[in-house]
Formats: sequence, structure tokens, C-alpha cells
Amino acid sequence: MRSINEIPIQVLSPDEMLTGQAEAVLTEVADLLERLLATGEEGSIDLRSLPLSPADRDWLDAKLGRGEVEISLEAGGRSTLYETAYSGVWKVVHRDTEERVVSEFIELAYVPAIVRPAGADIENAYEKLQSDLKQIS
Amino acid sequence: MRSINEIPIQVLSPDEMLTGQAEAVLTEVADLLERLLATGEEGSIDLRSLPLSPADRDWLDAKLGRGEVEISLEAGGRSTLYETAYSGVWKVVHRDTEERVVSEFIELAYVPAIVRPAGADIENAYEKLQSDLKQIS
Repeated sequence: MRSINEIPIQVLSPDEMLTGQAEAVLTEVADLLERLLATGEEGSIDLRSLPLSPADRDWLDAKLGRGEVEISLEAGGRSTLYETAYSGVWKVVHRDTEERVVSEFIELAYVPAIVRPAGADIENAYEKLQSDLKQIS
Repeated sequence: MRSINEIPIQVLSPDEMLTGQAEAVLTEVADLLERLLATGEEGSIDLRSLPLSPADRDWLDAKLGRGEVEISLEAGGRSTLYETAYSGVWKVVHRDTEERVVSEFIELAYVPAIVRPAGADIENAYEKLQSDLKQIS
């Protein structure tokens, strides 16, 4: 008979453990995606506000997968966004000027708001272009 | 008196010459941007359909400048898009699977159409996510 010391055991560090939170996040993604479809209303999940273990995050990234679109944006620090394998579901990471991650979201939108210029931005662009054209000709 | 041979001349190759076409393109950009603002209607200019010299292209790129947003997209070849210094004005280049440039556009839009998933894509994503969630739990 083997002694208890001979039974192989595997010690999981907290980093390696799934807490169940990641699955809850994925269910929330489905709910918010349904709302986007039904009403056009956008949603987001602040990943930093949740007690996700590194294993949870890896699991979530793997489940969400990667789509075709990648976006990067420079505005007082670099933001990177990518479409997941589920259309309308985006992973969004904002960094400060020292490249430190300051926020991480899953966003539910046709295109994340940060990428879309406001009407006022386009008005300003039009006025600037008109005035630039006058200087050229 | 200097002979005519001593007068310094500069020979411009066709590559170095501005044809006036680039300025016409910029005026068209302004017209299409005005329409986007007034009606929400998007527009595009097919740069490959125009007799632009390399100098024209450089001049145009310099005048349009660069904004904050860069997008890349993999779908049967790589597409790269960037926002110019004028909000709502995007430069869009599509490549084939051998990285050859197959088309170049200036697009007038809040966000270029190729980046926005269709409603049907989001419906499919929602159904797939629902079915994936059932397999997990």
C-alpha cells in the first residue's frame, strides 16, 4: 500500500486558478451584445474592476479570440483596440505616456467610441481645410 | 555677358513635377467632407484612377498629414487605414496576399465602412457566443 506521501499532487498557485469570474464576464458579454443588437445601445465591462486571476484573464482572452481588425490610437498615451472573434466585441487597452496600462475594457459597439470623431471634430476639420485651400491657391 | 549655357537650370523629371491634380483632389476632399457633415453621406476618391505624379502623391500626403488613429485589417490581404490630420478624412490602402497594393482611396466617413461590422455579423456573433456559453457550462 502506498503511503499518502506517494500520492502525486499538483499545487496550483493563485495565478493558475480559474475563479469562475471569467465565465461570468463572458455571460455578461453575451447580455450586452444582445442589448447592442436589440437597441443599438453600447456597453462596456471594466476588467480592472473585477477580481480576475491571471488564469481568468488568459481563459477570457482565449475564449474571445481575435478578429480581423486592429486599431491603435495616440492621444496622451497609446491605446490599442482589437476586434475579438465575435463581431461587435472589442478588447480595449489604454496606456499612459510611460506605456503603463491604465485601463482595460471589453467594449460592445459597432466601432468603439474612441475611434469615431465627433461631429464638431469634422466641422473643425472642414473649416481648417477650407482655410488651408485658400492659402494654397 | 553670360552665354545661355551658363544660366543655371534645373531639370525636373516627371516624378518631381506637380501637375495640379493633387490640389484638385484636395478641393474634392473639402466638397465631400462638407457633404458628410451636411447629410451624413460618405464619399471616397479612388487615387489610382487619377493621373497623379509621385510628386502629387507626396504633396497630398503631406497636406493631409496624420491624425491619431491607425487601423489594420486582415481579410484576404492586409488593409491599412489611417485618419489624416482632418477628422473624417481617412487614407485607405488595400493589399493582396502578396502585399502588393491593389487600391488606394481617400475616404470621407466618421469611420471607414470596412471597419464597421454589419448587423448580420453581430447577430452571428451573438448566436455563436450563446452556443459557446452552453458548451462551457
